[in-house]
Amino acid sequence: MSQASLKSSGSLRADLAAIVGETGLLEGAAVRERGAALFHGRVESELLVRPRGTEQVSAILGLCHSRGQPVVTHGGLTGLVQGADAAQGEIVLSLESMNAIERVDVAGRSLRAQAGAQLGRVQREAEEHGMVFPLDLGARDSATVGGNISTNAGGLRVLRYGMMRNLVLGIEAVLADGTVLTSMNRMLKNNAGYDLKQLFIGSEGTLGVVTRAELRLVSRTRSQETLLASVPTFDAMVELLGRLDSGLGGQLAAFEALWGNYYDYNTTAAAGNAAPLARGAPYYVIAEALGGDPVHDRARLESVLGEALEAGLVNDVVIANSENERRAIWAIREDVWEVQNIAPLLTFDVSLPIENMKAYVQVISDEVRALAGENRCFVFGHMADGNLHIVVAAGDDAATRARVEDIVYRPLAAIGGSVSAEHGIGLEKRAYLPWSRTPAEIATMRLLKQALDPRGILNPGKVFA
Amino acid sequence: MSQASLKSSGSLRADLAAIVGETGLLEGAAVRERGAALFHGRVESELLVRPRGTEQVSAILGLCHSRGQPVVTHGGLTGLVQGADAAQGEIVLSLESMNAIERVDVAGRSLRAQAGAQLGRVQREAEEHGMVFPLDLGARDSATVGGNISTNAGGLRVLRYGMMRNLVLGIEAVLADGTVLTSMNRMLKNNAGYDLKQLFIGSEGTLGVVTRAELRLVSRTRSQETLLASVPTFDAMVELLGRLDSGLGGQLAAFEALWGNYYDYNTTAAAGNAAPLARGAPYYVIAEALGGDPVHDRARLESVLGEALEAGLVNDVVIANSENERRAIWAIREDVWEVQNIAPLLTFDVSLPIENMKAYVQVISDEVRALAGENRCFVFGHMADGNLHIVVAAGDDAATRARVEDIVYRPLAAIGGSVSAEHGIGLEKRAYLPWSRTPAEIATMRLLKQALDPRGILNPGKVFA
Repeated sequence: MSQASLKSSGSLRADLAAIVGETGLLEGAAVRERGAALFHGRVESELLVRPRGTEQVSAILGLCHSRGQPVVTHGGLTGLVQGADAAQGEIVLSLESMNAIERVDVAGRSLRAQAGAQLGRVQREAEEHGMVFPLDLGARDSATVGGNISTNAGGLRVLRYGMMRNLVLGIEAVLADGTVLTSMNRMLKNNAGYDLKQLFIGSEGTLGVVTRAELRLVSRTRSQETLLASVPTFDAMVELLGRLDSGLGGQLAAFEALWGNYYDYNTTAAAGNAAPLARGAPYYVIAEALGGDPVHDRARLESVLGEALEAGLVNDVVIANSENERRAIWAIREDVWEVQNIAPLLTFDVSLPIENMKAYVQVISDEVRALAGENRCFVFGHMADGNLHIVVAAGDDAATRARVEDIVYRPLAAIGGSVSAEHGIGLEKRAYLPWSRTPAEIATMRLLKQALDPRGILNPGKVFA
Repeated sequence: MSQASLKSSGSLRADLAAIVGETGLLEGAAVRERGAALFHGRVESELLVRPRGTEQVSAILGLCHSRGQPVVTHGGLTGLVQGADAAQGEIVLSLESMNAIERVDVAGRSLRAQAGAQLGRVQREAEEHGMVFPLDLGARDSATVGGNISTNAGGLRVLRYGMMRNLVLGIEAVLADGTVLTSMNRMLKNNAGYDLKQLFIGSEGTLGVVTRAELRLVSRTRSQETLLASVPTFDAMVELLGRLDSGLGGQLAAFEALWGNYYDYNTTAAAGNAAPLARGAPYYVIAEALGGDPVHDRARLESVLGEALEAGLVNDVVIANSENERRAIWAIREDVWEVQNIAPLLTFDVSLPIENMKAYVQVISDEVRALAGENRCFVFGHMADGNLHIVVAAGDDAATRARVEDIVYRPLAAIGGSVSAEHGIGLEKRAYLPWSRTPAEIATMRLLKQALDPRGILNPGKVFA
């Protein structure tokens, strides 16, 4: 629908104003400037509507459904795959005015929030009640519960607590036609019919608009141990993961693998991070355990690491002795953007079986080297989750982008890998969805889309065209 | 479809024989006698077909779809809600010949099996590779991977490892029309489009036939501590759960609550179990922790329990010192059927928020007492999961059954409880689905059924009519 046709419809704005009031609308440049927050994205809409409750969301979608009016739902705008891009003629549905944390149930270990509540606020509210909401990611102070659900957010503690999908007990969502689907389950177990919330988790706003959720809380742990190890071989890294997971009795919460040149680059003087261990090793590991007993958990970790040193799985290792040391270790992992100094970056978020990882990284490193020279391909990631992040500093013009995407994505199809481990598909990866999904899978996705949003008004064109 | 019309179609049998061969078919009494294995169920089919691979399943369903021929899929026949009942005119699709464990990937922590593989064999295969498949339930030697997926099986370790849904990485399923949907993901993270496997988990064979799965393995733990505690109040039991979970650093794997009369009954001479702790307390708890360090884990558990005793949360407690003592504690929980000696049993599997549990049990206990006298209502269950099992010994004639179902299920609607925590709906609970799900939820379930199985051939009448 063109901008002209949206304007000519005339009463859409009036009908929306009747639902949310004049203060619930934004227009023109005030809408378009939201695009500035997006990663590689654009907002070209002329109209943004801010409902103040589920009933208003229902009325808005009912209206848009009847008119065939496309709607792009906005959360915290921290997505990385152009999932919140909004074209001319589409309206933006922002959940910013629906950000209440409605209830914390300590005995029942759950927290109820509206979809617009920021992740960081949810975390702090849980902490004030002596509990933990374990999902965590860098964008916590902007990202919202609704966005975390729509993208099935991952982050640093998936090994221990799972992705957002595992942390959602119940959902309230509004379907394309305005139907309110209230499935605010609070129990870990509920097998009464199909588990409908699964439809809305990770479907990037294309099957419904999540308005509220019941989230799972977990107990606070009493110890936190963070280590950095240099590791001689890939196989040693795999065995170290197994020994830590088993030896720490399931308390391992993070296991981040860093290929050597990423560590080396991020510990240069320019990057501003110290090198707690000598540079030049083939691999480095950052691992973190969350346990119940500060004294004995430390002793046990030292014992497991002692065995690993003796078995030659680890060259050298350091355990953080303070929060400052802990932050210094994590900074080596998190300062991704330092690499930006070499050339504009292309970033990737893939997953693949661990058994294929070593060869895969070798192949793409060789191809990037042939394309752009030494030290242009940096690899690190959540190894236990099968999730690697790849940063390529070779320019970001269209031709380079296409060539590098081909290098990174093409080998995944044969080994059952995924072009998106945790970021989603959005617009950015849409062309590559068929490299990770079969025609039958994509046809079944379309079948669901057709069943739940027959007029295609919800986040049109995202995930698949 | 009547038996007559099935026979008159004539070539169905021949067409099926052309797919699976004569040895792949069973007929008449040989089919109907399978009903003997079912809990409260019946098999009245005249024809059973045993495919030997996914391609044969696809051909069978393609044929049945084109004829509108209803199909009931059979796994290990250990379901508890008449989900495998098969009427005259329906054919049975048994996955008994598809029971291979195809691959164990230790580094990647996954195991690939055909749907007909028994849970117990999967567990043993994982153990032989030094890993653990953590789903566990009493029927492990009959129940199959496919059945566990279709019912989203739960069991004793959900608190630590989640239900079957959390343990399935990938699925291969055949849709009603014979389309093979291969989503054999092996990574913890894969956000490339909709997560289609969720459709088939817990939908009781009504949306597709699961043929293979990639299952998640976890590291073996090195310590196992089992305790029995008597507890003075319900609130103390809730606080004990929080302290154990937090104090044991997330190693708590089971927390079973036993209302006092269940413990008392199952420790009578007739029941054959010793009473490790004095009878007559209001509540008992059986808890189990799986950790990494036998010596220190025991010391830590004793320290947390010491604090709980001091705080008055626990009257008395015993920790198992041997595998025999461990089994003796669990037997008190597991010997459900001893109660059968009082009267024929009705058994229930409900879930509800912990904050409503005490009052709920009081109400239904009072109503059962009014109906049938003292000590006819026994309650125990996976408290941390919100899941209670209720056993009522008041007869099982139709009138009593209807009255007791009303007593147990009616209060759930107002408190957001579920008529099925882990067993599913099948035929048995179908009439009560609307007590746990809204009209919008059930309409959305029907929408999915219509989209994926437009002729309604898959396990017809199960979950909803």
